[in-house]
Amino acid sequence: MPYELYYWPGIQGRGEYVRLALEDASAHYADVARSERGMAAMMKMMEARNGTPPFAPPFLKAGRLVIAQTANILLYLGSRHGLAPKAEAGRLWVHQLQLTITDFVTEIHDTHHPLGPSLYYEDQRPPAKKRTEEFWKERVPKYLGYFERLLKSNGGFYLTGRRAAYVDLSLFQIVEGLRYAFPKRMKAFERRIPGLIDLHDRVAVRPNINAYLASDRRIAFNEDGIFRHYKALDL
Amino acid sequence: MPYELYYWPGIQGRGEYVRLALEDASAHYADVARSERGMAAMMKMMEARNGTPPFAPPFLKAGRLVIAQTANILLYLGSRHGLAPKAEAGRLWVHQLQLTITDFVTEIHDTHHPLGPSLYYEDQRPPAKKRTEEFWKERVPKYLGYFERLLKSNGGFYLTGRRAAYVDLSLFQIVEGLRYAFPKRMKAFERRIPGLIDLHDRVAVRPNINAYLASDRRIAFNEDGIFRHYKALDL
Repeated sequence: MPYELYYWPGIQGRGEYVRLALEDASAHYADVARSERGMAAMMKMMEARNGTPPFAPPFLKAGRLVIAQTANILLYLGSRHGLAPKAEAGRLWVHQLQLTITDFVTEIHDTHHPLGPSLYYEDQRPPAKKRTEEFWKERVPKYLGYFERLLKSNGGFYLTGRRAAYVDLSLFQIVEGLRYAFPKRMKAFERRIPGLIDLHDRVAVRPNINAYLASDRRIAFNEDGIFRHYKALDL
Repeated sequence: MPYELYYWPGIQGRGEYVRLALEDASAHYADVARSERGMAAMMKMMEARNGTPPFAPPFLKAGRLVIAQTANILLYLGSRHGLAPKAEAGRLWVHQLQLTITDFVTEIHDTHHPLGPSLYYEDQRPPAKKRTEEFWKERVPKYLGYFERLLKSNGGFYLTGRRAAYVDLSLFQIVEGLRYAFPKRMKAFERRIPGLIDLHDRVAVRPNINAYLASDRRIAFNEDGIFRHYKALDL
């Protein structure tokens, strides 16, 4: 059964965590909103007056199911495609880690949008600068320090053991994104998270991920997404 | 098997969505951090060097499992206590709705903390005012309008049908909290969400919820929690 992924066509955004899982699993999927009339189809599903309309993209159509919320989609895909344990305890643990990444992604977004998603970055530069300072001083060490610690306690291969889970693919994306958005700050910080950098490199050479990154299915980072490179917010 | 809930002792916060589910289900639980030496026990679990240490409260100990992230805890409890469907499609849908509420809760918190959680409100008053304006102009209508629409399409009883799910208890808490934090703004807004107000009233008179709200297990709203009443942010 081929999946249909619905997400804003011009950005990696939150859809990228789903794409990385689908690609790593060699799952068949259409990236619907990037095709002709795809955006109209996506909007129509969100505006449905009946059934289970999603609040926001990304969402995944899997047969008759329509599943929204990035972590919820990954929960669904994970155990079906060997990217999460099948037993409940393991599934809940990997999902919990993904939800922690979800919180971090929101905080990453808020560095350039502290006053909310409905104003432009250009209308909130001084608070963005202030929030970014706090983010790098307090939040990055707290979140990435947590994952670094988990990795160490687990032998340092993948976050939950010897097998990659979707959460590892997401951490790869976090490292990629922080390098793009804050090259100077991230360069200085990386020496504090050697395990996560190893994990990033291990994910990058997985054959399906490697092929995906080289393809035109991978959208380039840009200043409409979650990770944005604004010089004023780097060092 | 009695549960152990771990959450900051002085606030409702994110722990309250779990408390409401446990109370409605008449589940046996200890609110550990509110008991003597409970905070030390909570911190110890978060600092564990092995196993599955949570990133942050709330977390629930259920036998040998330790589950963190509010929505993840509710996912675990829901189908065990009749507060969510047992079939996968229904479970994913209710979880998806809870994750949308989770996003909304973060945005509620950010009205008084737009520059991040590590600074005091007093250090971010002007951006808080601006973010609150955007929040009420754009975000409240979007989130609550979505849930109002779902309720209508479903017959208007509970969000997913005739039976209450944990997501209904959470929406009760959202209405309570917005009334506490923004009494004037919420009063003006309520005429736009009659279905949600009915739902709130329906939850409030459920016997176990009613008894809980009257007990000293229910912590009062205060200015350390998610919902804070600051006059400058109301009208």
